[in-house]
Amino acid sequence: MADDTPSTHPDTPRAVVLLSGGLDSATTLAIARGEGFECHAMSFDYGQRHRVELDAARRVAESLGVASHRWVSIDLRAFGGSALTDRIDVPKDRDESAMTHGIPVTYVPARNTIFLAYALALAEVIGSGDIFIGVNAVDYSGYPDCRPEYVAAFERTANLATRAGVEGKRLRIHTPLIQWPKTRIIETGLRLGVDFALTHSCYDPQPAGKDVWRACGRCDSCLIRKQAFEQLGMRDPALTR
Amino acid sequence: MADDTPSTHPDTPRAVVLLSGGLDSATTLAIARGEGFECHAMSFDYGQRHRVELDAARRVAESLGVASHRWVSIDLRAFGGSALTDRIDVPKDRDESAMTHGIPVTYVPARNTIFLAYALALAEVIGSGDIFIGVNAVDYSGYPDCRPEYVAAFERTANLATRAGVEGKRLRIHTPLIQWPKTRIIETGLRLGVDFALTHSCYDPQPAGKDVWRACGRCDSCLIRKQAFEQLGMRDPALTR
Repeated sequence: MADDTPSTHPDTPRAVVLLSGGLDSATTLAIARGEGFECHAMSFDYGQRHRVELDAARRVAESLGVASHRWVSIDLRAFGGSALTDRIDVPKDRDESAMTHGIPVTYVPARNTIFLAYALALAEVIGSGDIFIGVNAVDYSGYPDCRPEYVAAFERTANLATRAGVEGKRLRIHTPLIQWPKTRIIETGLRLGVDFALTHSCYDPQPAGKDVWRACGRCDSCLIRKQAFEQLGMRDPALTR
Repeated sequence: MADDTPSTHPDTPRAVVLLSGGLDSATTLAIARGEGFECHAMSFDYGQRHRVELDAARRVAESLGVASHRWVSIDLRAFGGSALTDRIDVPKDRDESAMTHGIPVTYVPARNTIFLAYALALAEVIGSGDIFIGVNAVDYSGYPDCRPEYVAAFERTANLATRAGVEGKRLRIHTPLIQWPKTRIIETGLRLGVDFALTHSCYDPQPAGKDVWRACGRCDSCLIRKQAFEQLGMRDPALTR
């Protein structure tokens, strides 16, 4: 689970970065690195239907350079209740209004709370006061735990939960993308050297040969990416692989 | 992990009860049951040094009667940083002042935040608005995540995190023991039918035959129990087994 490499300069501040391997978390990692943090990535294996997401997180961490990359196994499948881990059909070809209203079927119960709780444990152990998470309240307004008021409440909880908080060291949850449109996330990522061909956001990847999967291009997540790249006059490299 | 049995009356409210198998969580379960909740227990295997704690949780859940008992595996060992999961010596024979001041060596980073995050996921999936946790701010004043202000902050976060919260259904974190002295916890448990001989609180159990372990009687946790039973004119049944 732990994969530590020697840290950079001892005074370099450390950040925990939650990394799914998607477009948003890749850009978030690049931003944390760009702000001068020594980045410790944390990824979760929570019974995703497609391991391709896990491979993407590995590739992104490697290509952007992290001080360590930890994997945490979570058996969310036992809780059920979401298309991402259950056998419910992923909706396809929905229009923007259907995508951005209400809580999506791909919602996983308490997911960000569980992820942030683990990130908090790691932050405390490695002496970090900074956690980065690539939540976005624009594209996925239906997820309650992607809203700024949720993040602020978790940050307050985190500062009361830990030894560091008791000792007066403030912990910050950074959500640089929270109010950004997808086009700005892509532009920023490109400027900071993210190779979006390595990322994976599709909810329902299709087989394209032995151990090779292709983004479906039709689920909400694929459509949002695709449209944003098109608005920038580009093609989504994850779709053209 | 899941072990569901048919629920009681469909209108009976459900509660998620965090159950370690110790004296406090056993009493908490008995209180939740006494308040009329259909109880769904959740226990964690986080690399404890002694499996005897896990056996105790199983025995307590069985003896008090729960609607389901879920086990969640957490690899906290990878984070290090505590006597409960690391190979640091458990302190023995400390006086009350040493026990109740500062953050104890047995502190596990972000433990209650991780446990409550999982409880929140389960609450959402089973349609429960009530989570019970046996934290106590009196005996273990050094744990930041046992304080009332921490619990209140988590409750607020939980209500912002979930679909239920967004739909206006209030979720409550119940901490019935938080301000109780150990003697009151024991008296209440006895009145509600808890068999404390089944519970296990020791940080450093000693071998007493094949697969048999005995509480050490000397770690902070044993001493606090022992003294409370003595104050009530009893012997701790976990020590006389």
